[in-house]
Amino acid sequence: MFTSESDLMRTIDWNEESNSVVLVDQTLLPQEYKIIECKTLSSLCEAIKTLRIRGAPALGAAGGFGIALAASLSGAKDLESMTRDLKVAAKALKSTRPTAVNLGWGVDRVLKAVSDAFDVRGVRDITLQEARDIAEEDVATNKLIGKYGAKFLKDGDTVLTHCNAGRLACVDWGTALGVVRSAIAEGKEIKVIACETRPLNQGSRITTWELMQDKIPVTLIADSMAGWAMHQGLVDSVLVGADRITQDVVFNKIGTYTHSILAKEHEIPFYVAAPVSTFDFKGWEGSVRIEMRDPEELRFSGCQQLAPKDVEVYNPAFDATPMENVTAVITDKGVFYPPFLLDEVLV
Amino acid sequence: MFTSESDLMRTIDWNEESNSVVLVDQTLLPQEYKIIECKTLSSLCEAIKTLRIRGAPALGAAGGFGIALAASLSGAKDLESMTRDLKVAAKALKSTRPTAVNLGWGVDRVLKAVSDAFDVRGVRDITLQEARDIAEEDVATNKLIGKYGAKFLKDGDTVLTHCNAGRLACVDWGTALGVVRSAIAEGKEIKVIACETRPLNQGSRITTWELMQDKIPVTLIADSMAGWAMHQGLVDSVLVGADRITQDVVFNKIGTYTHSILAKEHEIPFYVAAPVSTFDFKGWEGSVRIEMRDPEELRFSGCQQLAPKDVEVYNPAFDATPMENVTAVITDKGVFYPPFLLDEVLV
Repeated sequence: MFTSESDLMRTIDWNEESNSVVLVDQTLLPQEYKIIECKTLSSLCEAIKTLRIRGAPALGAAGGFGIALAASLSGAKDLESMTRDLKVAAKALKSTRPTAVNLGWGVDRVLKAVSDAFDVRGVRDITLQEARDIAEEDVATNKLIGKYGAKFLKDGDTVLTHCNAGRLACVDWGTALGVVRSAIAEGKEIKVIACETRPLNQGSRITTWELMQDKIPVTLIADSMAGWAMHQGLVDSVLVGADRITQDVVFNKIGTYTHSILAKEHEIPFYVAAPVSTFDFKGWEGSVRIEMRDPEELRFSGCQQLAPKDVEVYNPAFDATPMENVTAVITDKGVFYPPFLLDEVLV
Repeated sequence: MFTSESDLMRTIDWNEESNSVVLVDQTLLPQEYKIIECKTLSSLCEAIKTLRIRGAPALGAAGGFGIALAASLSGAKDLESMTRDLKVAAKALKSTRPTAVNLGWGVDRVLKAVSDAFDVRGVRDITLQEARDIAEEDVATNKLIGKYGAKFLKDGDTVLTHCNAGRLACVDWGTALGVVRSAIAEGKEIKVIACETRPLNQGSRITTWELMQDKIPVTLIADSMAGWAMHQGLVDSVLVGADRITQDVVFNKIGTYTHSILAKEHEIPFYVAAPVSTFDFKGWEGSVRIEMRDPEELRFSGCQQLAPKDVEVYNPAFDATPMENVTAVITDKGVFYPPFLLDEVLV
């Protein structure tokens, strides 16, 4: 296993000794830093579904390692049976988080690599190598995003971020927080305001934790305080990740859309940092079904009851920020200023 | 004690048998509906400080009953000593929530009435009567707010509200939710979207509970979902209360400012419902110190740890919504459309 840039394990990796996918259980942070081993596909699917691992790029690696795990576990004796097993695994993996495009991307990439195999052992080797390549490339990708994005942060800036588009959302370094890390690596002093990101509090639980590990100054606020913080002049820019970028919108954690409107109102730049693997070239706002999550997430906060047990709840996982609210999309292929055509990104 | 319109006790009242202030402990809702008795001034101050009782109009009554309680408890034998005791009590009461103008208003009103007393017994009678008058008038005031405001809600409308400007924020009926109740009393079907209102979740804990008691349809959302709910066409108007209204801004629970910007962006009317006792005729945005609350409110949600224990936190209790973001201020003296001069309200 690799050690990350910050001397902690990477967010997700393959353990050769136990032939399993190992990952940091993010539902336990910040109380506990625990590595879990997924030795079966169902345990990995459970980990994805319950957000033990989350974040678009990390889910890409999870998809890839998931197929490698399925190949490792399959008892198939011939290529045809093996392919059938992997297709079942692919379906199971993809259905855990239907909105997360990177998950499917990682699954499909590793599946595709299988065509190079001559036998089932080859499938096992190739899927694992391909999944590892995804992980390696993700780190390289995030470093590129950081390199391209750092110029937008000035020495002394305070960046407001939502959810966790950090190291723990990726294999390492981070997308939005990777830009912060790269700016700091260039010698700039950067502070972060982390929105707690209800209802699952990825901001308060994960973003603050990973920044504090790196001794990057971070202040926690409730999501509803973002507008007031901007009004008070506390925010120089907004920097978020993305779960899916279509021609017209950026799908990201619920609350991102609100921040984009607040940024526009206060004339603060609004940046999206994401790898091009997040681009959905055929999708539009209307073509993507937004996952509605369990009402219990708003009725309870862990052990704490917050609302009447039978109250009706509206709990979309994501929202869609119109491209016209976005100042720039920072990717591993460079920076794009809306409006732009997605196709041009890959030229 | 009075029974409220909904067959539950009023939010705050005087118990003649025990000579104490009785109130619904709102920190226990929705798990438990519990009445607590404050037999000492310090227990009442504690109840105000820890938000067992909250909401601008209810705090007006709490201030009034607090002085009556101090008069009841004072061992003073002469008017001079009694006045001194009441001034000490007034200071203690006001310091519990410095931003809440109604609290001081209730305290001062009852203190002023003392000048009519000839002896200490008279002080006790007069302060209690004056405090009771505040409570009675609050109910009448809210009914008037409801009457003036109901016309803004159309049959079938969905109203988004923040925090709790309901029956439990007042002695009875409510300000913002009083408008909803009055519209429903006129035969209209009105639905409410309640923002949970982090960090203390008055929306999820109290607003949903009191509306469900009255069988008014309510859907709970996270604060960060308000913008997206508006974008999806789910919101016809925003209706909030106020803690303090100056010439230029409306001070209300943190998050209100953000909702006002979202409403403007989506061309949705933004209404503030509050009694004229909330008006601060001499104040301006810059003249009011916004209370910064305990960082622990964001690090924990009851028993649930949400963030690293030593994370830095920004936790303002209120924000200030510019009057130009407000469509109308609905008061017991009628409806005012910004820009207007506060002085004209009382003409």
